Amino acid sequence: MNGAEALLRTAVSAGAEVCFANPGTTELPLVAALDSVPGVRAVLGLFEGVCTGAADGYARMRGRPALTLLHLGPGFANGIANLHNARRARSPIVNLIGDHATWHLASDAPLTSDIESLARPVSAWVHTCRSSAELASDFATAWAVASTRPGRVATLIAPSDCQWNDAEGPAKMVASEPAATVDDAKIAATVEELTRASRPALFLGARALRADALRTAWSIASATGARLLCETFPARLERGADLPNVERLPYFPDQAAASLANVDALVLVGAREPVAFFGYEDATSRLPPKDAKIVTLSSPEENCEDALAALREALHAPRPAASKAPDLPERPTGPLNPSTLGAVLATLQPEGAIVVDEGATSGLPYFNAATAAPAHTYLALTGGAIGQGLPCATGAAIACPDRKVVALQADGSALYTMQALWTQAREGLDVVTLLCANHSYRILQIELARAGISEPGAAARSLTDLSQPRVDWVALASGFGVPASRVDTTEALRSTLGAAFAERGPRLIEVALG
Amino acid sequence: MNGAEALLRTAVSAGAEVCFANPGTTELPLVAALDSVPGVRAVLGLFEGVCTGAADGYARMRGRPALTLLHLGPGFANGIANLHNARRARSPIVNLIGDHATWHLASDAPLTSDIESLARPVSAWVHTCRSSAELASDFATAWAVASTRPGRVATLIAPSDCQWNDAEGPAKMVASEPAATVDDAKIAATVEELTRASRPALFLGARALRADALRTAWSIASATGARLLCETFPARLERGADLPNVERLPYFPDQAAASLANVDALVLVGAREPVAFFGYEDATSRLPPKDAKIVTLSSPEENCEDALAALREALHAPRPAASKAPDLPERPTGPLNPSTLGAVLATLQPEGAIVVDEGATSGLPYFNAATAAPAHTYLALTGGAIGQGLPCATGAAIACPDRKVVALQADGSALYTMQALWTQAREGLDVVTLLCANHSYRILQIELARAGISEPGAAARSLTDLSQPRVDWVALASGFGVPASRVDTTEALRSTLGAAFAERGPRLIEVALG
Repeated sequence: MNGAEALLRTAVSAGAEVCFANPGTTELPLVAALDSVPGVRAVLGLFEGVCTGAADGYARMRGRPALTLLHLGPGFANGIANLHNARRARSPIVNLIGDHATWHLASDAPLTSDIESLARPVSAWVHTCRSSAELASDFATAWAVASTRPGRVATLIAPSDCQWNDAEGPAKMVASEPAATVDDAKIAATVEELTRASRPALFLGARALRADALRTAWSIASATGARLLCETFPARLERGADLPNVERLPYFPDQAAASLANVDALVLVGAREPVAFFGYEDATSRLPPKDAKIVTLSSPEENCEDALAALREALHAPRPAASKAPDLPERPTGPLNPSTLGAVLATLQPEGAIVVDEGATSGLPYFNAATAAPAHTYLALTGGAIGQGLPCATGAAIACPDRKVVALQADGSALYTMQALWTQAREGLDVVTLLCANHSYRILQIELARAGISEPGAAARSLTDLSQPRVDWVALASGFGVPASRVDTTEALRSTLGAAFAERGPRLIEVALG
Repeated sequence: MNGAEALLRTAVSAGAEVCFANPGTTELPLVAALDSVPGVRAVLGLFEGVCTGAADGYARMRGRPALTLLHLGPGFANGIANLHNARRARSPIVNLIGDHATWHLASDAPLTSDIESLARPVSAWVHTCRSSAELASDFATAWAVASTRPGRVATLIAPSDCQWNDAEGPAKMVASEPAATVDDAKIAATVEELTRASRPALFLGARALRADALRTAWSIASATGARLLCETFPARLERGADLPNVERLPYFPDQAAASLANVDALVLVGAREPVAFFGYEDATSRLPPKDAKIVTLSSPEENCEDALAALREALHAPRPAASKAPDLPERPTGPLNPSTLGAVLATLQPEGAIVVDEGATSGLPYFNAATAAPAHTYLALTGGAIGQGLPCATGAAIACPDRKVVALQADGSALYTMQALWTQAREGLDVVTLLCANHSYRILQIELARAGISEPGAAARSLTDLSQPRVDWVALASGFGVPASRVDTTEALRSTLGAAFAERGPRLIEVALG
């Protein structure tokens, strides 16, 4: 048995199921081990950002680490943007990166680079293996780090001789630390603040956005008059049907601050204190009112489900009951725009759908429309690194083959990682992409206007406009083997989307929005 | 004047002409400055790897720094792979990366990351600006670092308040250090070794691969019986017509070692000692024979043109004469394969073409066929980070609008940065892409066989085969606005390529090779 096989055996024992891979020469022993040690499904991405974004989507839905297999520093670098999002989503991921043989590094061959320096900004743990005898145990450590609740990114660099040289066998598993329990004093302090405040709010993130925790939070809100708010970009939010509605904090800082203006106690549950997404001239980072009390019930790393349950007990709030589902929007008609698009999706999406929202400005109206949709899971762009939606949908579909996945996807963002469509076609994944084609970086046009540049010059226009030439998404999707069509009316969207939901397999619908 | 405008004015004074950009909110003051301070052309890439690869191609042909404008850590990360290639090519590039306002960084907003850690592995110089008053002078330093011959990558991180706050004005230029002169002792030592050796060879890289230097090297070779060899992947090699032919060192280390087996003195001119591209089991990093003398006439950073001229003088070698151009290959016929593809291109390419070779296994036969082509420039994949060809061709076309650019491009590699086609369409660039479609990572299939895995299992097959489904390159190119067609015979390639060379503007020809 060589080091690569010892690693794979350890991975299979740990429960690894999928490896999102784009390997090269330095990873070939690990590629061969994927055959000699059965149990881990190899899924090829044509670009590393597809692999890391898929690992994020898989991890959010499956709750256990996905593996990635990437080629040296430059290959890994292509995966960094979506690992940045995964880190912000607190997704468990183990990156395996091949490197030159230990004895070859000193030669500074063309592909040599400082992989650790590249990996650190997106990894909770980075380690370069030193010998084949240690590769399996290094993996066991990486898996334990990644599995630490709610989840972390661990990066293991494996020089190729550590993969091909002999190893004794798989390593013993390393236990990962359980999520820390919130102590009674914090529960008591939160009770006190909630009781004292006149306009409290719970600000929810991480595992507080799962179904049971949301119901508990709703009981607490009902008993205390607190508002229920969640992060602007939740990693995973259960929604629809009888789940309580949660307000999403607006994106722009002035709107977010306005939303929080009346709050006098903000209780953080599985979330950090919200801050402005960007800093602006004459603005600040802080969003809650200066005199609002910020109370941390639990950090994202702590056990926020138990903390919520204990808080409910302490408040003697009633057991959570189902909330009444609001009515779905009317059968949408009228011109095709982000509002009608959101309404059509919300009215047609099937029970149990997973909606990956990288719709940017085109996706905004969907969130409110979907409050009344059947039970579904909502995955957002956590880290702001665009090009996340199509890969994330790909990974979610692999994690949950029995659920319909919808990618609500902005066109500008899709262009960073559109190669994900090929993986969807190859794996026959049940993903419907609603490609919102406004042929612009609309958010930047809005930001220019907000910055007082109401009439951008030629350079600013050329750097925010994508209409010359217009990207033909039907052609691109077809080129990758995904059946596609274009709609330019609300009626056509409704019939095309309905037909896509009635079938299985990948589909792309280019929604003409501009 | 704000910091961004002061920077742009400094850039215009320095001679900056082009900024390959994919900006976001944190770079908007610099975007606005591209309008308020005329002189720098903004070229949009839909993916950052397009911007950095184009900057590399531009820099190789123009000999002065290109600017890139990229969005925070994740946006920059998408550009790292091609900056890795640019670093290995020693291309002058100044990266401008926006960051959060200095006062916003402590909030750890979603897009915050350690940009310096990401930038260091590909940059000779990394600096984070501290105030708007310093932004222009920081840029002047970056430009000087980048301009240090033969060229370097300099990365300047510009927090958004350093862009929008007031500045006094443009900064004074900083002189860049000239390339070090090779001293007389080295010339004398090289003369001695060349005279003593029975089978010497000159190993050429960097500026020793320009036309005048090649002619000088040919005189030296004629006078001493030395072979002329060059790096396997030269950043820029002048070729064809009456230029002396230079052997390219083979890629696989056993073949490279065999090529060097008889050499008893290897004189390095603008090149480092060649090493194996990858380490293999039971192999070594070193390529020249153990007892061969390695003589450094000049490093890539030193003035190798002057060193060659001095060496020629010291050897009393005759002034360089034109070498006799060999005959072009026969009008190629027969089945379409890499050999006939290479021969067709070599026979049809126009005078002055710039050939960007990321053909990988499909591109190998072209190099020898083109020895007899009209004078042209050859740009190779210097750092092994794939996805370089289409962006590099884009940048080369912007640097040299009067020359025909040919991208000899492998399909697997093209899939990393195919968004470059859109920039070619938008800018109307005169680039013909020969898309070599063998629908596999053929090099990995070869490497598996070399590693003794003659019958790869299902995972290894799935990770090296791209045929299910086949990517339709005509559809992809059309989707990006580039006219495209597919050829599956040598005859069809000849007529289609001939027609493409007779016109201007971007074209893609999918060459069916498997």
